[in-house]
Amino acid sequence: MSGKLYALSSGPGAADLITVRAARILGQLDVLYAPAGRKGGDSLALSIVREYLGAHTEVRCCHFPMSADSAEKEAVWNDVAAALAQEVAAGRQVGFITLGDAMLFSTWVFLLQRIGCPEWLEIVPGVTSFAAIAARAKTPLAMEQQSLAVISCTAPEADIAAALRQHDSLVLMKVYGRFARIKALLAQAGLLDAALMMSEATLPGEQCWRRLREVSDDQPLPYFSTILVNKQWEEA
Amino acid sequence: MSGKLYALSSGPGAADLITVRAARILGQLDVLYAPAGRKGGDSLALSIVREYLGAHTEVRCCHFPMSADSAEKEAVWNDVAAALAQEVAAGRQVGFITLGDAMLFSTWVFLLQRIGCPEWLEIVPGVTSFAAIAARAKTPLAMEQQSLAVISCTAPEADIAAALRQHDSLVLMKVYGRFARIKALLAQAGLLDAALMMSEATLPGEQCWRRLREVSDDQPLPYFSTILVNKQWEEA
Repeated sequence: MSGKLYALSSGPGAADLITVRAARILGQLDVLYAPAGRKGGDSLALSIVREYLGAHTEVRCCHFPMSADSAEKEAVWNDVAAALAQEVAAGRQVGFITLGDAMLFSTWVFLLQRIGCPEWLEIVPGVTSFAAIAARAKTPLAMEQQSLAVISCTAPEADIAAALRQHDSLVLMKVYGRFARIKALLAQAGLLDAALMMSEATLPGEQCWRRLREVSDDQPLPYFSTILVNKQWEEA
Repeated sequence: MSGKLYALSSGPGAADLITVRAARILGQLDVLYAPAGRKGGDSLALSIVREYLGAHTEVRCCHFPMSADSAEKEAVWNDVAAALAQEVAAGRQVGFITLGDAMLFSTWVFLLQRIGCPEWLEIVPGVTSFAAIAARAKTPLAMEQQSLAVISCTAPEADIAAALRQHDSLVLMKVYGRFARIKALLAQAGLLDAALMMSEATLPGEQCWRRLREVSDDQPLPYFSTILVNKQWEEA
């Protein structure tokens, strides 16, 4: 069998929200690369997929620095991309796992930039965190002619405010550390009552806040916290 | 066991891109409701999930009219919502399947409006068509501070043009019957070279067009055709 690289989306958190395809591939891998949040730390993506791994699969955790030093970041991305290509050249079945969907706000995309589109690469899509949040909160993302914007709370404030004006429905990702600012933008746009916030959706620590005007600006939040806004939705 | 209703996302098309959770639930259902495109016609969502159904599961295809007559539409939604609630009251395990993700541009949301948020309802999220398109085309949806807009080509032209200006990345859904108009909007925005179109992603009939300026305005398109725009992406 010739070598192959699979970029595997592990979904929002619950182990049974990965796809059947990803589960089957995980069972056949020679080696799995898993990004870890901290050096030597655990990988959340790895904890999601561990039950599907084959008995012989080697696991390699790799740490991607969050630092603003882009030379350091780029060196790590270059190294991991080269390591993945070398494993494939040696004829191995190689996996790289990401949280949520591999193509949306994921470290994988920086590796894809370096690896390009070789024949030996397959990307397996996954359930995004916001699809899971919508399902858990029973609040739709969009219907009919409505539009949905998915934005990072690290984006410029004016861009977030414009998106809040123009779309029927919004997903505000990466709220961690920026809640007070985002809450103020929602208040200015008159959207506090159309918003909900969810952390760690589908995991045991899942939390949901529905009345954001009552949530303190300094509410401690888990790292994976997202706000969903739907201007049009009223429950039956 | 008391009755329960599962809104099950069947994913973009390939049977193994449903979630492990949806596959397990499908095997335990007493009855599965499947939307059919035409009266008496086949259900694409049903064809995706059929292999996971239990031997005893009853299948009921229901047709939702596409007509502009909203009284007719509403009567059908009311009838199906009432039927689902009755099955649950009778203690049955009931499924309703949708293409892609249940909470995004799906018929399920009209039923959710009528059913509300009872304890006996669970919504199982799924892989969206655009996550599958991004994976197949090896073109990312968004990274870092970028923003993604997901819009329907049935939306007002000015809204589509504004979204094309303001976001780094866009998914234009429901292109069928509107390709010439959308191509003109992309040309006006200078984005024809940043766009690709994909039909029936992950299904045997999958097609991908990468040079939209060379695609004829009257190119025949399958019903499930979507355009993905990423202004920032350049392949390695």
